[in-house]
Amino acid sequence: MSDSRTASVIALSGGIGGAKLALGLCKVLPPGGLTVIVNTADDFDHLGLRICPDIDTVLYTLAGLANPTLGWGRRDETWSFMQALESLGGETWFRLGDRDLALHVERTRRLHVGDSLTAFTADVARRWRVRAQVLPMSDDPVRTRIVTAEGELAFQDYFVRRRCAPPLRAVKFHGAPEARVAPQVQDALRPGQTSPPRAIIICPSNPYLSVDPILALPGMRALLRAAGAPVIAVTPLIGGEAVKGPTAKIMRELGLPPSPLTIANHYAGLIDGFVLDERDADLAGSLDLSLRVTNTLMSSLEDRERLAREVLQFADALARPRRSPA
Amino acid sequence: MSDSRTASVIALSGGIGGAKLALGLCKVLPPGGLTVIVNTADDFDHLGLRICPDIDTVLYTLAGLANPTLGWGRRDETWSFMQALESLGGETWFRLGDRDLALHVERTRRLHVGDSLTAFTADVARRWRVRAQVLPMSDDPVRTRIVTAEGELAFQDYFVRRRCAPPLRAVKFHGAPEARVAPQVQDALRPGQTSPPRAIIICPSNPYLSVDPILALPGMRALLRAAGAPVIAVTPLIGGEAVKGPTAKIMRELGLPPSPLTIANHYAGLIDGFVLDERDADLAGSLDLSLRVTNTLMSSLEDRERLAREVLQFADALARPRRSPA
Repeated sequence: MSDSRTASVIALSGGIGGAKLALGLCKVLPPGGLTVIVNTADDFDHLGLRICPDIDTVLYTLAGLANPTLGWGRRDETWSFMQALESLGGETWFRLGDRDLALHVERTRRLHVGDSLTAFTADVARRWRVRAQVLPMSDDPVRTRIVTAEGELAFQDYFVRRRCAPPLRAVKFHGAPEARVAPQVQDALRPGQTSPPRAIIICPSNPYLSVDPILALPGMRALLRAAGAPVIAVTPLIGGEAVKGPTAKIMRELGLPPSPLTIANHYAGLIDGFVLDERDADLAGSLDLSLRVTNTLMSSLEDRERLAREVLQFADALARPRRSPA
Repeated sequence: MSDSRTASVIALSGGIGGAKLALGLCKVLPPGGLTVIVNTADDFDHLGLRICPDIDTVLYTLAGLANPTLGWGRRDETWSFMQALESLGGETWFRLGDRDLALHVERTRRLHVGDSLTAFTADVARRWRVRAQVLPMSDDPVRTRIVTAEGELAFQDYFVRRRCAPPLRAVKFHGAPEARVAPQVQDALRPGQTSPPRAIIICPSNPYLSVDPILALPGMRALLRAAGAPVIAVTPLIGGEAVKGPTAKIMRELGLPPSPLTIANHYAGLIDGFVLDERDADLAGSLDLSLRVTNTLMSSLEDRERLAREVLQFADALARPRRSPA
């Protein structure tokens, strides 16, 4: 009888919100017990450098290098490069710290000599002693394009340069139909001889901008469903608003009620359970889905670890009847 | 009658030693009165970035941004990028400061979109209010290769990574035979309707590594000779040693006496006058060339300006008989 406590946990994550729960999971699981599949559709080329915002946020967060003030980038950061670039008339709308820059320069060099994004990311995780496996969703280019009232924008133009101001009409994932799920992601979800994953957790990232690109990869939904583990989504909304980011704004612009119910329904057919915030407990009756109601706000490291433990307990409770029918 | 005092002065320069005299010239001449033609054969691609050490040293020096302690790079520099790159296992033998990096990243981007090195350099000089025209010798790639006792090395491998340790056998300038003198350099040396240059000054840079690549460009020697201005070289050696850099070491390895006489002879057929250091005054009788003997050591800004004035006076004295034969 395989013990689910030793099986791996798989998390799907975008940037900040997702990385918070990934850190909690990483802390409460044994080394190597967590695999994070990360959105790469926010990646872009800027100043000749390949920048992967979500991968970097996950790496920095899990390595203990994340900037606690900004919510993005590295801790103990300096900004000399940006100042000098400004004096040269360069593009400074996307802020790149001096330490952060090293990751982009080295990644660009490694990709140029033929290494895969997966291989480079694994190398960085190893060097920084990250205790989880961090996997880009794909080594092929997928690029989010935002259709707005002012025309179509590249993701970072919309998200950073325009600060999500232009009303959003639709989201496209260029390249997704042709992109291949990274082989290492396939391996993680199709464990072969080893036991199936303990749980698959959709972190509280923006469903429309951060999780949908992962789910848009051909075969990804089938891989998730066939992995033999309960799939759990954690709400990114509390009381009708996102903790951080434009999730609720985007939902209103798409004509969707900015409610956790909308998000649970968005994942219908994929998830086995949904984690609802206690501030939205009154909505529990409206959901025809296994639910866990708890405090999902992650302010401290203790919050992240507590939520991670609760999500894992919830997954285990959902898994038990499936693994060993009474 | 054209007044030579308003005509332009042209300096040929490598990095540090040349930039010192260029700064002196820039300070004592009116704005726009100096054009510096800079060696680009030390340029190389590193970490995916185009780095132009001599152009950068000249730009930083003339903009008042040079690092006074290191002798290369920028003042008020920070080193976060290098520290982070090291943690990623990146190549750190060529030190790139955070501010310095902005110049390389922006240049690489601009070259990639089709701008010339000349156009980018002019743009930087303008933004930094450099009062001189800074011209790369060529927009075409010329790359110095050092033939050593241990085999052939790319210039920066020899100069920085190996610190000039391997005994030098020969110097090659790859690409020089096919490279075109930059059009703006041609314009500066062929002034057309305007008056000829007041003087052409070969700065006290390494003749073999920094000046020879400029002179190796097809047509460059003829342009210098035909410009109608006295050509003056300033010794880079004082008492048989270079103030900085491997000039004397290289001369010994090439079997050449490390003497200013050797250097004056090296420029034979090109120069009209030679500036000898007062510590080598005893050699004056051995040179069949117009000479100025003075203190060529440039420790302070005052030294740079004084030497610049003396070199210009020397040039004017050499020019007068040619301009208006008595």
